[in-house]
Amino acid sequence: MRQEIVDRLAAVMKRSGLDALVTSSPENFAYVNGFVVPSQPLLRHRHAMSIVTADGRLALLAVDMEESTVRARAGSAPLAIWAEFSDSAMDKLAGLLRSLGLAGARVGLEMDHLPAGDFAALSSQLPAARFEPAEALLARARQIKTAEEISLLRRLSRIADQAIGDSFAAVQAGSTELDIAAALTRSVYTQGAEQFKLLIVATGERSQLPNVGPTERKLRRGDVCRVEIFSVISGYQAGVCRTAVVQEAPPHAERIWQHLVECKYLMLDLIKPGASAREVYQRFLAKLREIDLPPISFVGHGVGLHLHEEPYLGTHPVIGRTDDVPLEAGMVLGIEPLCYRTGHGYGMQNKDMVLVTPTGCELLSDRTDTDRLCVIR
Amino acid sequence: MRQEIVDRLAAVMKRSGLDALVTSSPENFAYVNGFVVPSQPLLRHRHAMSIVTADGRLALLAVDMEESTVRARAGSAPLAIWAEFSDSAMDKLAGLLRSLGLAGARVGLEMDHLPAGDFAALSSQLPAARFEPAEALLARARQIKTAEEISLLRRLSRIADQAIGDSFAAVQAGSTELDIAAALTRSVYTQGAEQFKLLIVATGERSQLPNVGPTERKLRRGDVCRVEIFSVISGYQAGVCRTAVVQEAPPHAERIWQHLVECKYLMLDLIKPGASAREVYQRFLAKLREIDLPPISFVGHGVGLHLHEEPYLGTHPVIGRTDDVPLEAGMVLGIEPLCYRTGHGYGMQNKDMVLVTPTGCELLSDRTDTDRLCVIR
Repeated sequence: MRQEIVDRLAAVMKRSGLDALVTSSPENFAYVNGFVVPSQPLLRHRHAMSIVTADGRLALLAVDMEESTVRARAGSAPLAIWAEFSDSAMDKLAGLLRSLGLAGARVGLEMDHLPAGDFAALSSQLPAARFEPAEALLARARQIKTAEEISLLRRLSRIADQAIGDSFAAVQAGSTELDIAAALTRSVYTQGAEQFKLLIVATGERSQLPNVGPTERKLRRGDVCRVEIFSVISGYQAGVCRTAVVQEAPPHAERIWQHLVECKYLMLDLIKPGASAREVYQRFLAKLREIDLPPISFVGHGVGLHLHEEPYLGTHPVIGRTDDVPLEAGMVLGIEPLCYRTGHGYGMQNKDMVLVTPTGCELLSDRTDTDRLCVIR
Repeated sequence: MRQEIVDRLAAVMKRSGLDALVTSSPENFAYVNGFVVPSQPLLRHRHAMSIVTADGRLALLAVDMEESTVRARAGSAPLAIWAEFSDSAMDKLAGLLRSLGLAGARVGLEMDHLPAGDFAALSSQLPAARFEPAEALLARARQIKTAEEISLLRRLSRIADQAIGDSFAAVQAGSTELDIAAALTRSVYTQGAEQFKLLIVATGERSQLPNVGPTERKLRRGDVCRVEIFSVISGYQAGVCRTAVVQEAPPHAERIWQHLVECKYLMLDLIKPGASAREVYQRFLAKLREIDLPPISFVGHGVGLHLHEEPYLGTHPVIGRTDDVPLEAGMVLGIEPLCYRTGHGYGMQNKDMVLVTPTGCELLSDRTDTDRLCVIR
């Protein structure tokens, strides 16, 4: 249990008139409790849920298979266990809500996660409850990180950044993309990450493809190599992308890279409390246009327990949210100046993790000197 | 598009009176189309959906970010693209259903996946449609693998098995669990897997913990090492678990292992078309009791596009399904004789992949000789 976060959610619920909220997604369980129930992200039906009440209480629901893990980590919060092969999780959840005096309450749910079938079952069990969408409230709370979350995201950013550097150092012309991946994942684990996500190794002409994993393709002199990885601990994730060239840069690569680096510094300069997310994006677009690089739909986004979170640094934030947002201290953003299609047969990307501080911002992925293109020998 | 699977689903729909079904989960998109939309499993809101009609037509919905990937792989099926930052995916889906003449049809949905908010939006767009749960129909179809799926699962089983053997050969007393993980993941990628899932490295006293990743713990003489991994290609996954000892087996380990090996051969003997899933499980339990090992809730389950699929080899199959099922040719099962708590401070597990053939079964994870405990030098 994370009292600071429970209290924060309770305060938000009071303002919005909710009596309680129920988290159903793996990321919001981790948000409230500080750990991931191991098999929840892998097996969708293994519901693990938190009930947070407007008066600051917490109760949990977990599947029997994970009882020992949850008991060991959840502290003293009441815990209801449902049996995977003989119970209905929604019946148990309804019972838990009743036992907390919430049978007729206004209860927020993650309507963008809870499956429609489970929602129907829960509604029929608790006909007097009023269920409302709470995903926006949770997303908003998660935008501003606590000191503990910032510390973890700083560590994760450095792990990802260092691992990419290690992988570039481990290979040479003639090595394959799989060799890069092997060195990269080894380094991520050796540095203490629990797992990783979104491993991208895209070299040569493949560097133009957005989200591709490693292949047997061999590195050749003059190749551009785009490598990205997210390191993960306790459900939190930080992603870094770097670009290297093999032995020498191909035509125009140095110039395009310098431009992407200027974009990075421009954003580090602009990102501070009160800055407009849209303006940061538009200034980035203007910078891209200077050298005729094509626009992209966003140049950054919040990061934390999900790969993309709000706020987006882009023209069109997610449907149903406000048109623009001011940045705030405590936000952690991924910023990614990139060009998949430079027109020269290769793509380049430079993705960093940034914390909005009270006075400006802090580069969290600070292990690689990106002022010059990385070189693979 | 996989015509064989579209035709199979169309035939099932005709029998059940459905006019069409809509897949919403990443695994059922992969089932119908043979590939995963890269960011769908990572970003829940990036809906990629298939509409399969009872007369054997296919239409697809994908997010703009993934348009090029889907167009390159989806063949000639009609494709509707929704814009992540300006469209509602459900509006686009409703439009696609209308264009196929399905506005007033009986349409199956994955009610155990489609979020409640999306279901409400879709229902309000298509008031004349009758939506019904289709997850059981899809799960049932997926139980019997096609020749293409079997070939892929055989390949994946061997990759996982070989990778664990490679990792045992790469380490020695004094190496860490992270060294095992690094060798393991390197081998998985080198053999051509696109990614992996559920990496478990549990050594020494940690071998008693069900689902734990690698740590800095160093291997010591007499340690028991439980290592599991699922290799993944195109959304399909095959999991193998092996147990090794460092230099020499601790007390009782050889005897317990021989018993788990006898359990494996018992199951390979029992698994054939027509065999009762429950009986296989009960025969396994009886075998465990012979040496006073504690029971587990299932000893096997279907595998394919999800970590656990039906049928379960266990006493209590998933709620709402029949109490027992006969095995059928074309099923692929994970079978996992295991004991986390042997009472001697270590746990052991031996997980294999098995195909039910017309006359019996075939061991798919056939790279390791499990008749004796693996030994790390």
